[in-house]
Formats: sequence, C-alpha cells, structure tokens
Amino acid sequence: MTSRTIPVDPFVLTVFGATGDLARRKLLPALFHRDLAGQLPQRASIIGASRRVMSRGQFLDFARQALVDHVPATELSGPELQRFLDRLNYVVLDAEGDEGWRDLAELVAPQSDLIHVHYLATAPSLFQPICERLSRHGMAAGNARLVVEKPIGKNLESARLVNAAIGAVFPEDRVYRIDHYLGKETVQNLMALRFANALFEPLWNSGHIDHVQITVAESLGVEERAGYYDTAGAMRDMVQNHLLQLLCLVAMEPPASLDADAVRDEKLKVLRALKPIDELNAGQLTVRGQYRAGASRGGAVPGYLEELGSTDSATETFVAVKAEVANWRWASVPFYLRTGKRLASRVSEIVIGFRPVPHSMFMPAAGPVSPNRLVVRLQPDEGVKLWLMIKDPGPGGIRLSLVPLDMSFAEAFNVRNPDAYERLLLDVVRGNQTLFMRRDEVEAAWRWVDPILEAWRATSERPKPYTAGTWGPSAAIALIERDGRTWLDDGA
Amino acid sequence: MTSRTIPVDPFVLTVFGATGDLARRKLLPALFHRDLAGQLPQRASIIGASRRVMSRGQFLDFARQALVDHVPATELSGPELQRFLDRLNYVVLDAEGDEGWRDLAELVAPQSDLIHVHYLATAPSLFQPICERLSRHGMAAGNARLVVEKPIGKNLESARLVNAAIGAVFPEDRVYRIDHYLGKETVQNLMALRFANALFEPLWNSGHIDHVQITVAESLGVEERAGYYDTAGAMRDMVQNHLLQLLCLVAMEPPASLDADAVRDEKLKVLRALKPIDELNAGQLTVRGQYRAGASRGGAVPGYLEELGSTDSATETFVAVKAEVANWRWASVPFYLRTGKRLASRVSEIVIGFRPVPHSMFMPAAGPVSPNRLVVRLQPDEGVKLWLMIKDPGPGGIRLSLVPLDMSFAEAFNVRNPDAYERLLLDVVRGNQTLFMRRDEVEAAWRWVDPILEAWRATSERPKPYTAGTWGPSAAIALIERDGRTWLDDGA
Repeated sequence: MTSRTIPVDPFVLTVFGATGDLARRKLLPALFHRDLAGQLPQRASIIGASRRVMSRGQFLDFARQALVDHVPATELSGPELQRFLDRLNYVVLDAEGDEGWRDLAELVAPQSDLIHVHYLATAPSLFQPICERLSRHGMAAGNARLVVEKPIGKNLESARLVNAAIGAVFPEDRVYRIDHYLGKETVQNLMALRFANALFEPLWNSGHIDHVQITVAESLGVEERAGYYDTAGAMRDMVQNHLLQLLCLVAMEPPASLDADAVRDEKLKVLRALKPIDELNAGQLTVRGQYRAGASRGGAVPGYLEELGSTDSATETFVAVKAEVANWRWASVPFYLRTGKRLASRVSEIVIGFRPVPHSMFMPAAGPVSPNRLVVRLQPDEGVKLWLMIKDPGPGGIRLSLVPLDMSFAEAFNVRNPDAYERLLLDVVRGNQTLFMRRDEVEAAWRWVDPILEAWRATSERPKPYTAGTWGPSAAIALIERDGRTWLDDGA
Repeated sequence: MTSRTIPVDPFVLTVFGATGDLARRKLLPALFHRDLAGQLPQRASIIGASRRVMSRGQFLDFARQALVDHVPATELSGPELQRFLDRLNYVVLDAEGDEGWRDLAELVAPQSDLIHVHYLATAPSLFQPICERLSRHGMAAGNARLVVEKPIGKNLESARLVNAAIGAVFPEDRVYRIDHYLGKETVQNLMALRFANALFEPLWNSGHIDHVQITVAESLGVEERAGYYDTAGAMRDMVQNHLLQLLCLVAMEPPASLDADAVRDEKLKVLRALKPIDELNAGQLTVRGQYRAGASRGGAVPGYLEELGSTDSATETFVAVKAEVANWRWASVPFYLRTGKRLASRVSEIVIGFRPVPHSMFMPAAGPVSPNRLVVRLQPDEGVKLWLMIKDPGPGGIRLSLVPLDMSFAEAFNVRNPDAYERLLLDVVRGNQTLFMRRDEVEAAWRWVDPILEAWRATSERPKPYTAGTWGPSAAIALIERDGRTWLDDGA
C-alpha cells in the first residue's frame, strides 16, 4: 500500500525568519519532501525573508546545506534537489523598518492569482510589525494566509494583544496558529481510531477509562535557549499549548464533521471544562521542578542555573499537573500531565489507562489480569499500541500475558512517516484549519494556565530540584502514586 | 516466550477402539506430543484395547506408524519415541462379550493408586456395553474417568438413553464428553479476550454487535463415511455439537469462575435461551443442502448420492440457520450458523460483526467507514484478528483503511499450536471438566435441534442441491443477504 498524493494549488510561501533554526531544520526539509512526493505544483515558489544580508545564491547555498543536514542523502541525489532550489528566492528585509518590503511586494505582486502564505518563523515580538507591513504593502488582502508559531503571548492578557494585532490585519479564517504536535501522524491516527471505529467510543468515558497520562519528556536541557526559557518556563512553553492540545484531542466529544470549526468548537469545550487550579489547590494538583547537574546519555550535564549563568531562578523546567475535565463524560477521571527538560529519555506519549476488569474469573496461576491501555506515542518513534491480555499459547490451563498490539501499521503500509510540518504546511495551502489553534482556544488555555502561574508566584515555595537524567522531582511521582497509579515511563 | 509445561499426575489411559482412525490420527500423536514436552510423568501408561487380534509388538508397530504419519519427522528422531512406545500395552477385547476384560483388569489393577482414564474411541452403540463391563470388572470405581466422543444420541430421546447408560456407571463429575472444538487454542483465546480485558465485555451485546457468523466448512465430502453419515446429516453431525458449543462460548454471560460447572451453567443458559425453530418458521430460518457433483481443489468430485451409492436421500450435507439467543443481552442479534461438506474451502471461524459507527464525520474522500469485526479462526490455521479502521499513513487528509490486527500472537510466542486433543486429554487427567459437555448441555442442544429435524421431516421439500466446491445452496446466501448482511467467506 502506498500513500496517495494529490498536488495542492499553486502558492507563494514567504518564510519570515528564513535563515533561522525552524526554517533550516523543519520548513525547508518539509517543503522539499512534499516536492519530492510530487505534491508541489510547477508554479509553487518559496521566498526567504530575513534581516541577514545575503544574495539569492547565498540563500540557495544555505537551503542546500539545510537539506543536506536534514534529509537522507539518497533523497537528494536526483534532479529534484535542483528543481526545489529553483523555486527559492530571497529578500533582505527589516521586519520593523522599511527595508525590503517593496522588493518583497514586487516579487509577490505578479502572482496575485496564487495562494499567498506568510509564515512568521520569527520572534513573537515581530508578529505585529510584520502584519502591519504586510497590510501596508498590499500583501494581506484577498487569499493571503498568516502562519504563526507559539508562543502566543505569555498570559491571557498578552495573548489577547497578540491575537488582536494579528486580527487587525488577518481575519481569523486566514490565521493558522501552528502546534506541530497536532500534525503528527499518530495524533491523526488517534482521531481515526476514535471516530472511524465503533469499538472505542462506547468505552471512551469515565465508566471505562481509569485515567489518562500525557507525557512530553525531553532529554536535552535548555542550553543556548536559557535566556528566553527563563522568561517562560515549562508551563508556558509546553503545557499551555502542546499538552493541552493533546488533552483536547483525547477528551473532546465527537464533532459532527472534521471541519475546522466543528473540531475546534469541541476542543474549546474541553478547555473551558478544565477544573480551575488556583492558589487553593495548586499545591495538591501541581508539581514544579528545576534540574540540577546530573548525567544524560552517558555524560555529565550541568544544571539549569549553570546553563542560565545565574545563581537563582524560580523558572520551572518540569511540570506535572493532575487535571480534570469537569463534564459528564470525564468527571473524576484524572488527566496526569507532565513535561520537562533533562528527563531520563526523550518520549512524548498519551496513555489511555482503562479500568481493570470488574472481576477476574481466572485462577491465581493464570497470573494477574492487568488493565488494558492504549498508548499513542508521538516521539521518538510514532505508533499506537493497544495493550491486551491474551492467553499464552500452549496446552496447559489458561495463563495470561499483557501484550502490545501495534495499531499504527506504518510497517504494513511501508511508507515513511511524514514530518508534522509537511502535513501542516500543505494544510495551510489547502485552506484547512482543522489542525490549527483558533484564537479562542489559545485564550481559553491561558485562562486555565494563568491562575496556576499566579499561585506559583504567590507561594514562597521554589520549584523542586531534580537531578538531570531522572523522571523529575519525587513529588511528581508522589502526585500519581498517591492515587494508587503509576507513571508509565516509556509506555512500559 | 515459551509455554510452561507442568507434568500431570501419573495415569493409566485405556483407549477402547485403539486401532481406529481417531486413535491413529489424533490420540496417539497427541499423547506423544505431551510426552515430548515432558508433561507425562514416568509412570504414565497407555493401554490399547480393540477387538483386533494383535500382539503388543504389533500394536507398537501400529503406534509407531501412526506417529510417523502424523508427527513431523524431526520430533521422532530422539530417544523420546522409544520412551513413548515403552508406555504402551495392548489387550484384545470384545466390547460386547467377555474376551479380554480379565486381561485388562489385571493390567490395570496393580496401579490402583493412579488416575484411570477410559477413552471410548468407539461406535456409540458400544458405550453402554463397555460401561457395564468396566463396572463389572471393578474398573469404574474410585477415580476412574470416562471419555466419550460424539455422537451422543441422534435426538433428545436417544441421547437421554446414552447418558442414562453412562450415568448408571459413572457419576457426571467423572464423565468427559469431548468436543474437540472446545480444545482449540483460539477458543481458549476467545475466553481470555472476553474476560481478561475490560475492553470487550461492554461491547459484547446487542447494543454494539450487529450479528455473529459461525462457519464450519469442509472441502471434503462424506466419502467412505457415507453409510453412517446418511443416518445423521449435518445438523446432527456438526450443528448440534460443534456449532452450538461455539455459539455458547460467544454468547454466554461471564461466569463467576472458570470452574467446570460455573462455565457449563452459563453455556446451558444460552442453549435454553435459543429461540425455538419448528415447522412454523423452519422454512424462513433454516436452509438444507445436499451436494451434487462438482469440482474441489482442482479435480472433479462426485455428488453425495454417488458417494452414497443411492438414487435418493433426504440427508442434508449442508445446513444454514439463523438462530437467536432470546435473552436481555442478545435479543435481535442474529447468529448465522452454517456448516457443510464439499464447500469452497476448509475453514472454521467465528465472526463477531460489530455495528457500524452511528455517524461518520469523515469526508467521502476518506473512503467508507467499514464496521469493525473480530474473527476467531479455528481452521485451517488458528488465529484471532480484529479488523479496525485506521488512517493511511501520509500527509494528506485522513484516508481510512480496514486492516486486520493479529490478536493471537502465536508467532510472538514462537511455539507450535498444540492440537486440541493434547489439551483435552491432559484436562481429563487433571480432572478439569470445563471444556467438556455436561449431560444437560447435550440434552438442551437436542431439545433445540429436534423440532428443526422434525420440521424438515414433515415438509415435502428436499434439501436444496448445491454444486460441490461452492459455498452451498443460493438459499443460504439469500438467508443472510435478505437481512442486508453477507457471509464473510474466509474472514475477508
């Protein structure tokens, strides 16, 4: 079986911040892969825009190197590499000044019949100035679409300001707030499993699900991002967007269709149903941590403060939260969220823990009857596994084993798993907003996060230290063990 | 992973009809395999008993040939073959006379501390005379167990007589009525899936299951068994026992334990809940067929009447029934049963057809959302597959495929699937009756079957002809298609 690829409509995609890390590591390789798959029409073109002074030739060198670094060599050996480079152009541009805007407009103007995408791979502080200039130079009208990356603000108030500045130029139905977790193959598969099978939905509630775990663990530290990171912390950097978005996809009611607003309405309902956490209960329901020096992947690594070059910081590099979706379906089912840097391994996954069987009819010799669980893994490898009890084959009595069943079938289909950005970039061109966050979602997430941040600020407690290379502070383990449950590290 | 084998207690197993087909093809190979696995204790021994005059040496030759014919050569190359043959003894014995009984008693008597098993691999007409003689010669007392094969009677009345004759000598808790379908690995796995996982039981009812199909299809004809077969027919030969037993395992309520009577009580409840079929509705709910000459596995094959050497017979070689279990869980869920000889392929399987999703939110381009199904295959290969809709991998929109998920894991465990007789023979030695039919079950099955046979007898209609090598008469296809459903040939 192979994946079918249908070319999208012709487009001009301008990447602001084209010489940055995101463009280099993700956007250029993603566009190349789609080109390689035959999904970019002949007239599709890409404009790099950045403050850095370079010629088109130099930008092509930059792009070629980005592909060499991030695409398997076998895929670069054909004529497709040159075809892709031929699509590229470059403009030196000052996001906060006047330089380059006329050049950009001149490049774009002749193609007014195409879809125009403006991808802001820049610092959030540039969102407003860029939007204003796009508007001023006639590049925001018609069918032009805006793509922005997190963070959208650092609390509800600032997020509203950012959204308002964007909204002053681009109507909501042309704004694409990217959360690349939503573009993951397995996240899509979760939707298919839930809604294309009659088997799961009847079980998808507090009657049959005991709890949900969502883990986004990184083994790296903050490293050169320490300066920015210290102003954000794990709650803003990860929980407010990625973890809550994953929670929404698990918890949402079945939408009537996969139309963008139908799906986003359901996600919004989940965010609004999150039980508030504030200074009254933050101590019970949340754990903050900050890593100290330790070992990671066989080598000694410094602590957060050393990386920051400071003697003090109250910024959390780890968060665990026991959340609850207070609605008919989910009341009393804990959603345990955790994310952190310098943890024991790099793994992102959702674990749906089903309730145990109400009664075991098996002899003690059969072994324990473990509860079923569904594990949706997003990183490092993507896959969906259903853990089932089955009978050990053999002629004795019934003896049981818990065995993982692969439900993702990437191997059966024998295709590479596309990167999330490939899906999301093409969805922008297609005008499909389903996998992008709507303004009210972002703000609802902040509305839940703000009181937690506020509670932390108000307390004299500091983030709990944890040794780099472990699973976070012991208080995070206590958070779940206290309920008689256990974090499933590595889905095991 | 390997299967664990725990030796059973020492036993003396007497096989009546030891030179017959069942002993040769199934019982001797099964016992050898368990010996090879180290599951037979040193003192375990086997006595062949038959009317045929032969010496112990000749019986050993017979047994050796049986193993050569039915066991892979690699398993016969070690010293285990001789060890097994050393366990064998032989007695010439007249089941209806006096000859040999004293010899048998003398062989058995010195081992009064062992478990004694009497396996009647004989014509049913010999059950009563053998039981009487076992009793008369002191071999029915104490811990002695009786194993009998189908058929138990040919209607309710005759089954009661057989059971009464057996019961006059052996109390029910020492009677083992074998149905080798219940010893199949996948049938055991069905119990583990249903009752060791919290996932399935909530779906296991008319709210979520659309219908059930049970197919036991043979590609062979009656051949040399035509004489016997013509007095029985497919309903007595297959439906009354094998198909109804499988239906019971699918439909039964969860027993409180896997104790023999707990399980058999639940099966009995299912049999008693079968909605009666009689002359009023047999025409709508049943189809009889009889094969005509056709082609099977590439060659021409004769019709039933030719094999029988007769110009006329109303015996059915094919049956399809639309059954219903009239209780709270299953009301309105059809159980389509079919079995026949000379069908298109040899396949035995249970298909649990789930209801379709109540609403599809996917675009038409995603493809149809097919209902889930669970397929438990017993023959020719054993396995359990869950058919699920999953997302085709790839960066486009969501496109769906129905894909089978292997839930039996024989490959993962890397062990051979033991033959049903291996499990069942050792269960007899262990004294575990769970997989054997209780008297009241057999009689309840006849109570449901008798009025169907009676209705057929009362009508002037004949079994519908079907061509050998097809899936039976077209009326059997109409039986299910009329309900908007389709037989899933080969689980496809």
